[in-house]
Amino acid sequence: MNERLARQIAFLIEADKLKSVVRRTPIVDASRLENSAEHSWHLVLVIMVLREHGPAGIDWMRVMEMVVVHDLVEIDAGDVSAYDIGALEAKALRECAAADRIFGLLPADQRACFRRLWDDFEAQETPEARFANAVDRLQPLLQNEHAGGGSWCAQALADEQILRRMAPIETTMPDVWPHVLEVVESFCRAGVLRRTRE
Amino acid sequence: MNERLARQIAFLIEADKLKSVVRRTPIVDASRLENSAEHSWHLVLVIMVLREHGPAGIDWMRVMEMVVVHDLVEIDAGDVSAYDIGALEAKALRECAAADRIFGLLPADQRACFRRLWDDFEAQETPEARFANAVDRLQPLLQNEHAGGGSWCAQALADEQILRRMAPIETTMPDVWPHVLEVVESFCRAGVLRRTRE
Repeated sequence: MNERLARQIAFLIEADKLKSVVRRTPIVDASRLENSAEHSWHLVLVIMVLREHGPAGIDWMRVMEMVVVHDLVEIDAGDVSAYDIGALEAKALRECAAADRIFGLLPADQRACFRRLWDDFEAQETPEARFANAVDRLQPLLQNEHAGGGSWCAQALADEQILRRMAPIETTMPDVWPHVLEVVESFCRAGVLRRTRE
Repeated sequence: MNERLARQIAFLIEADKLKSVVRRTPIVDASRLENSAEHSWHLVLVIMVLREHGPAGIDWMRVMEMVVVHDLVEIDAGDVSAYDIGALEAKALRECAAADRIFGLLPADQRACFRRLWDDFEAQETPEARFANAVDRLQPLLQNEHAGGGSWCAQALADEQILRRMAPIETTMPDVWPHVLEVVESFCRAGVLRRTRE
């Protein structure tokens, strides 16, 4: 086998480990926690279904590619609760080292392309990255909504924490935002989230 | 919430069930069987990495979208061994009914688009569908290769059954085909596959 194909296959085999990275969010029937690989698949499907609610004229293929690779760094760096601010700083350093190692398995030209995708997602400066990020916030909310609270239940979270986390949805998919507010309100009423605002 | 968004979300929540459809192929560390949602994610990644080995000028976004939706019918129809020819006929009927129900959750215009994607994949008449299909054959082979035989071990398969199943790779990604032959040969030597050809 030529070296280029060998490197490509080595990367694809290493990527398989994302199926063993467990997230905080349960799948909808609440039978188990979701892993980051199936989460990434679900994000692509969300993009395909909800892109009409996003900005016009953006590069949808790039948005899809971003969500496919955005969590690969978790193979080394693990998944951290989005609400654990202290852990998030250390996480950023671990993820950068993980990106070096994991994308470094690819041939040099592809390493650069994949790294650029991941860097762009992290930088949140393009409309593609912002839509990818909004979808990454929305999918767990929808899943928690249909799993009786899901990952919110164990963390004693306040409504304002959720709404701050979900804010990218308001700017990127404004007609989906009222549904986010409804979900947060209903889980406040149910006592899953602490109400801290009128 | 307006009816259109409600239907889109209902579809996305129903799709979550694909995470509970268990395939025959183990993940690479052989700790458990893979599910169809994480498999679908892995296929998109394979497309992103190996598309240079495919035909020039095809619509790669459509290839990606095809693999994202191609297994959704398994939510109702289940996963069937690719080597159980009898079961495959009944499967086709079940999958058609499943496509009606599951894509039918979407607003009418999107139902038609998603159904067309799935029909095109099944028909195998476009280069996009053929590449998506070849990737759907290659990924389990790579995974079995690195999991010590994986789903091949329990089925007493012959080399020619595998090669017939893998044939779409030969025409669609000809420079990957020698690796497929090497893998099959090595598993014949190891006694996992029955050798029936010279």
